[in-house]
Amino acid sequence: MSNPTLDLTIQLMKQPSVTPNDADCQQIIARRLEQLGFQIEHLRFEDVDNLWARRGSQGPVLVFAGHTDVVPTGPIERWHSDPFAPVVRDDHLYGRGAADMKASLAAFVTATEDFLATHPEPRGSIAFLLTSDEEGPARHGTVKVIDTLRARGEALDYCIVGEPTSAEAFGDTIKNGRRGSLSGHLTVHGVQGHIAYPHLAKNPIHLLAPALDELARTEWDKGNVHFPPTTWQVSNIHGGTGATNVIPGTVELQFNFRFSTENTAESLQRKVHAVLDAHGLEHEIEWTLSGEPFLTDHGELIDAIRGAVARVTGSVPVLNTTGGTSDGRFIAKHCPQVVEFGPLNRTIHKLNECVAVADLPKLSAIYRKTMEALLT
Amino acid sequence: MSNPTLDLTIQLMKQPSVTPNDADCQQIIARRLEQLGFQIEHLRFEDVDNLWARRGSQGPVLVFAGHTDVVPTGPIERWHSDPFAPVVRDDHLYGRGAADMKASLAAFVTATEDFLATHPEPRGSIAFLLTSDEEGPARHGTVKVIDTLRARGEALDYCIVGEPTSAEAFGDTIKNGRRGSLSGHLTVHGVQGHIAYPHLAKNPIHLLAPALDELARTEWDKGNVHFPPTTWQVSNIHGGTGATNVIPGTVELQFNFRFSTENTAESLQRKVHAVLDAHGLEHEIEWTLSGEPFLTDHGELIDAIRGAVARVTGSVPVLNTTGGTSDGRFIAKHCPQVVEFGPLNRTIHKLNECVAVADLPKLSAIYRKTMEALLT
Ligand SMILES: [Zn+2]
Ligand SMILES: [Zn+2]
Repeated sequence: MSNPTLDLTIQLMKQPSVTPNDADCQQIIARRLEQLGFQIEHLRFEDVDNLWARRGSQGPVLVFAGHTDVVPTGPIERWHSDPFAPVVRDDHLYGRGAADMKASLAAFVTATEDFLATHPEPRGSIAFLLTSDEEGPARHGTVKVIDTLRARGEALDYCIVGEPTSAEAFGDTIKNGRRGSLSGHLTVHGVQGHIAYPHLAKNPIHLLAPALDELARTEWDKGNVHFPPTTWQVSNIHGGTGATNVIPGTVELQFNFRFSTENTAESLQRKVHAVLDAHGLEHEIEWTLSGEPFLTDHGELIDAIRGAVARVTGSVPVLNTTGGTSDGRFIAKHCPQVVEFGPLNRTIHKLNECVAVADLPKLSAIYRKTMEALLT
Repeated sequence: MSNPTLDLTIQLMKQPSVTPNDADCQQIIARRLEQLGFQIEHLRFEDVDNLWARRGSQGPVLVFAGHTDVVPTGPIERWHSDPFAPVVRDDHLYGRGAADMKASLAAFVTATEDFLATHPEPRGSIAFLLTSDEEGPARHGTVKVIDTLRARGEALDYCIVGEPTSAEAFGDTIKNGRRGSLSGHLTVHGVQGHIAYPHLAKNPIHLLAPALDELARTEWDKGNVHFPPTTWQVSNIHGGTGATNVIPGTVELQFNFRFSTENTAESLQRKVHAVLDAHGLEHEIEWTLSGEPFLTDHGELIDAIRGAVARVTGSVPVLNTTGGTSDGRFIAKHCPQVVEFGPLNRTIHKLNECVAVADLPKLSAIYRKTMEALLT
């Protein structure tokens, strides 16, 4: 049986596009879209390739967004087959990028081809926003393309990000938002001294302990119907030079919030400083806001994709906002409705990443039915 | 005015005996002692020179103990004069080892010379125990000489360690013991995970925080008339690999007790494990006992040296047990009465280390009067 989504997925997986390398994946997709009448723009920022392709000049604008880059393979000898020589085994397609997210990219293309074959003059516009810098620092990718669109006043209405969102069964989950991510690098100052004369020193590790305990126990919020509660976790703590007879002068802590819309970056910053001040800690924090939380709580896009998934899989998917960050955080600043939907994420970023062959035409059908609901 | 203690101090300071290098200091001293009828034994263990010199075969045995090694100079350009070219300036002798402890070594020798000149046949024995490994790891120095003496059944009765004990004014302080030193290297185990999924991980830094706070606040004992209270201090804490999106699997902590005779190494170990267990921490600790506390709370030696100091300086010195560890901890295991007495310690281990020229004959006189009290 012909499976054009499988064919294009395989073609894209043969390109070893380890982040931030696009390895011509965007060229392959651009050639297919050009034949459908898309206008192609290659937007390269620093070492990152980005593609903006659009068909139509009117609204509403429906965007398919995704990334052509993949994470490194890890120890290649522990793969059952070459990660860049995709192979079907036991009804699954194996190789790096199978699920994250070359299957979704291929399904975007075949869905668009199928849709335009039956609806050559849809209302509105269809666009593709692709980057090769989602798995890396994400500084010269989607965020820059969105800046470019905003600067020239090009509005977006709906965006489907092709991230693998299915958790247990294909189609079980749509992400309708993501938590925010706020990091801090805390330095607490004490007074260095000899360990035999603690009364002449102030041990910053001892001073930090009760504040650290309080921060770790704090309930930042209870979450809400769309978001789980905000979490706070320490990733690194370092104090002392290795000498075992010296009380160090400082201790450093790196931490991260994943936060719901019940807090803002500002409210969390204020609360952390308040705890440290209450414990009398002389301190400073370098803050990094990786992404504000975003949420699409209702609207035509959710109705359309939910209906499409239900018709193809026979079950209504759940909406949730858990997991890491995605490029959705950048798009949501410029596009009022953003959702993420794609295949099972169980094997992503792991050895022997794979996607079920049978899910590929289903994925394409879901994207196509969503287009039909929004643009006809 | 002739000052033979100054002359010998200068001679020893010209030898750049940076630990564990003796740089012939023990030879210089051995030649002087040989002329007084001492039996000389050079005991070299690994890279460390040790000297055991004894005059007499009967008890009581009075030992002068000390070290010929010095700590490194630090940045030489920040010294006002060459640290190994001793020079007198403003009534002080400057150079590395002036106070810690070449002045004391010189005073041991001149005191013995003066004493034997007037008491050629004293009762008992006089001995010197010198090492070049007190400022370093102290593994092949005094501890090995004591092992040797004990193995051959050579008993000791009184020992004066020449460490610089004077704090504010020359002769104000005798140390009649030292606190114990017990170190631990703690590893707390959690479960590593992604920072966006804390419910799948167990953050060992968070788990440690309340136990660390409790340990830092614990009153281990109140000390006693001879010892200040036991102290506990963290010198190093490390957790996390630098990645800011990973909850680490372990956190490591290095800590040190300085402890009084109100606790033992065993009681402290038990208490630490009890706190960690009460907080449910999966953990292990590598323990290192650097020294048990020791104390000489009364006896002829204290009476003799206290009286000698009072007669020379006009003030009665205080006894205390504060400060770091010294080789006294090794000697006390084999010698029932051990005290430490020497010049001002304000400049030791620092740039421009010095000793007051006027204190050198006083120091020699104190050691001589102590000998007179114990051996005549
Ligand atoms: Zn992805
Ligand atoms: Zn010393």
